Amino acid sequence: MIAIGIDIGGMSIKGAAVDSNGRVYETFSMPCEKGEPGEITIRKLAEIVKDYISTFGLEDKIVGIGIGCPGTLDVKNGVVEYSNNLGWNNLPIAALMNEVLSYPIRLTNDANAAALGEAKYGAGEEYNNIIMLTLGTGVGGGIIIDGKLYEGNLGKGGELGHTVVQVDGEQCTCGRKGCLEAYASATALIRETKKAMFNNEQSLMWNICPDIDMVGGKVSFEAAKQGDEAAIEVLNNYIKYLGEGILNYCNIFRPEAIVLSGGVANAGDYLFSRLNQYVRDRNYGYKMTPEVKILPAELGYDSGKIGAAALFFK
Amino acid sequence: MIAIGIDIGGMSIKGAAVDSNGRVYETFSMPCEKGEPGEITIRKLAEIVKDYISTFGLEDKIVGIGIGCPGTLDVKNGVVEYSNNLGWNNLPIAALMNEVLSYPIRLTNDANAAALGEAKYGAGEEYNNIIMLTLGTGVGGGIIIDGKLYEGNLGKGGELGHTVVQVDGEQCTCGRKGCLEAYASATALIRETKKAMFNNEQSLMWNICPDIDMVGGKVSFEAAKQGDEAAIEVLNNYIKYLGEGILNYCNIFRPEAIVLSGGVANAGDYLFSRLNQYVRDRNYGYKMTPEVKILPAELGYDSGKIGAAALFFK
Repeated sequence: MIAIGIDIGGMSIKGAAVDSNGRVYETFSMPCEKGEPGEITIRKLAEIVKDYISTFGLEDKIVGIGIGCPGTLDVKNGVVEYSNNLGWNNLPIAALMNEVLSYPIRLTNDANAAALGEAKYGAGEEYNNIIMLTLGTGVGGGIIIDGKLYEGNLGKGGELGHTVVQVDGEQCTCGRKGCLEAYASATALIRETKKAMFNNEQSLMWNICPDIDMVGGKVSFEAAKQGDEAAIEVLNNYIKYLGEGILNYCNIFRPEAIVLSGGVANAGDYLFSRLNQYVRDRNYGYKMTPEVKILPAELGYDSGKIGAAALFFK
Repeated sequence: MIAIGIDIGGMSIKGAAVDSNGRVYETFSMPCEKGEPGEITIRKLAEIVKDYISTFGLEDKIVGIGIGCPGTLDVKNGVVEYSNNLGWNNLPIAALMNEVLSYPIRLTNDANAAALGEAKYGAGEEYNNIIMLTLGTGVGGGIIIDGKLYEGNLGKGGELGHTVVQVDGEQCTCGRKGCLEAYASATALIRETKKAMFNNEQSLMWNICPDIDMVGGKVSFEAAKQGDEAAIEVLNNYIKYLGEGILNYCNIFRPEAIVLSGGVANAGDYLFSRLNQYVRDRNYGYKMTPEVKILPAELGYDSGKIGAAALFFK
């Protein structure tokens, strides 16, 4: 069984044919030009997909086209209601695609698509119930229950970054204060790294990144591995908030695993060993409650495409 | 279709036959004596259930016996691993019941049972996806997805009170700090009511309850309705924390409704109008995200029995 999986991002749209073993065929890609009306972008996409399908002679093999897209979606009707990053408003993606392509179209949130991909073919492959958290500009999430994506009423659930862990805390982009996103995103880590650098002129972090405007999510990790105290403090605090958020999801879902993706999740053992320890030490209900494994994602940038296609696989 | 539903509490065990329309037949009850070995309590219970079934001639009609019980459970094997309130440790309830009764036994957490009862036959009857929060001594919870109870790995999920909303906040009974339970339980409301009374000697709350040791969850509501400022402040703060917890569950699950049960949920319109407003004002994703109704539970003390029986109904 083969489906087309498409991952819409702020800079580009990427897609590929994906089979039900999670194998990704040749990838196509087009820029997502800021300012271009969404109708035009999607009509271009539809033509590219049509050409792709005919080039590879897949006309009779494709069971559908799955699309992962950021923003507020009407998944039932295949409409992007609002996407700040893309500048799209009430864009009927499914209808526009169907002007050119007669396959069924399924739309889901980009974080949901990535979670489904990781759950079925990546880090969560062995498990039926996983939670994925994407630690990037924001904190996205996906809920997989019994191997299937849980999206909530009208597809509006799974906003796992927008759960308050600190009432009256840091301002979040969603309007509330103290969301997990405001503490566990790469953006939050960079904010705290910069603060620590300003307060510690002798920190190794200045050697690693002399230009404060260029500070990224890796600076604190690199300095901490070399024993820099300011960096260690930044990361201890980051791990504490992320750990508390993860513990919350453990107690709510008691999944078999929690998969972390996004830039920060590439930090490797420094992050995962401490995070696993933090969560293990605070596991609810003594030793009788099963541990939840915290794992890095495995599929990288393919997860969105694979998961979008997997909307058509059992 | 008829099942026996049993609700085990710290003071007594209550049960009844329940049919698949949610109708509750005559209730039986026995004390749950603190200090009595669990084996003896459950063997007594089994004899009572056996008598009950034969008294009403239900032998051939019963499809199973559902049991809701507090504590840490092994739901798969029907074992109470640990219950602090009951003083039970590794008590094989299902096996003990099956010494006398040959029906299938299903065990679940007491809050889960109540949630399932409300979901299928009470406040959540019209909906497929609901979250229930029980605001009592602690904060319990239940997750209903597609009309079915979601219990998590080995039945250890659904601990909705044990999610941190205030990192480094009030000490919770679970070991962590700042859990929703530590702010939204009746215990927390009473703690804050007492604090406010000590700090406000002129508060009406002293007239309503002159003995500070007798302060319950209703004192602040009664005083607030009469305009007492100290009481209003206690409740504004209570509603804020409960509201933030509810918003978290809205963003995670986007259920159709959130049902509140337990003593505090009897506070009526004063609580529900403010709580609905609090949540509506902070609804994620502008107007495009469906509102989540916050409703009081309807089944009272029957919810646990009905839900335990409903473990056997589709």
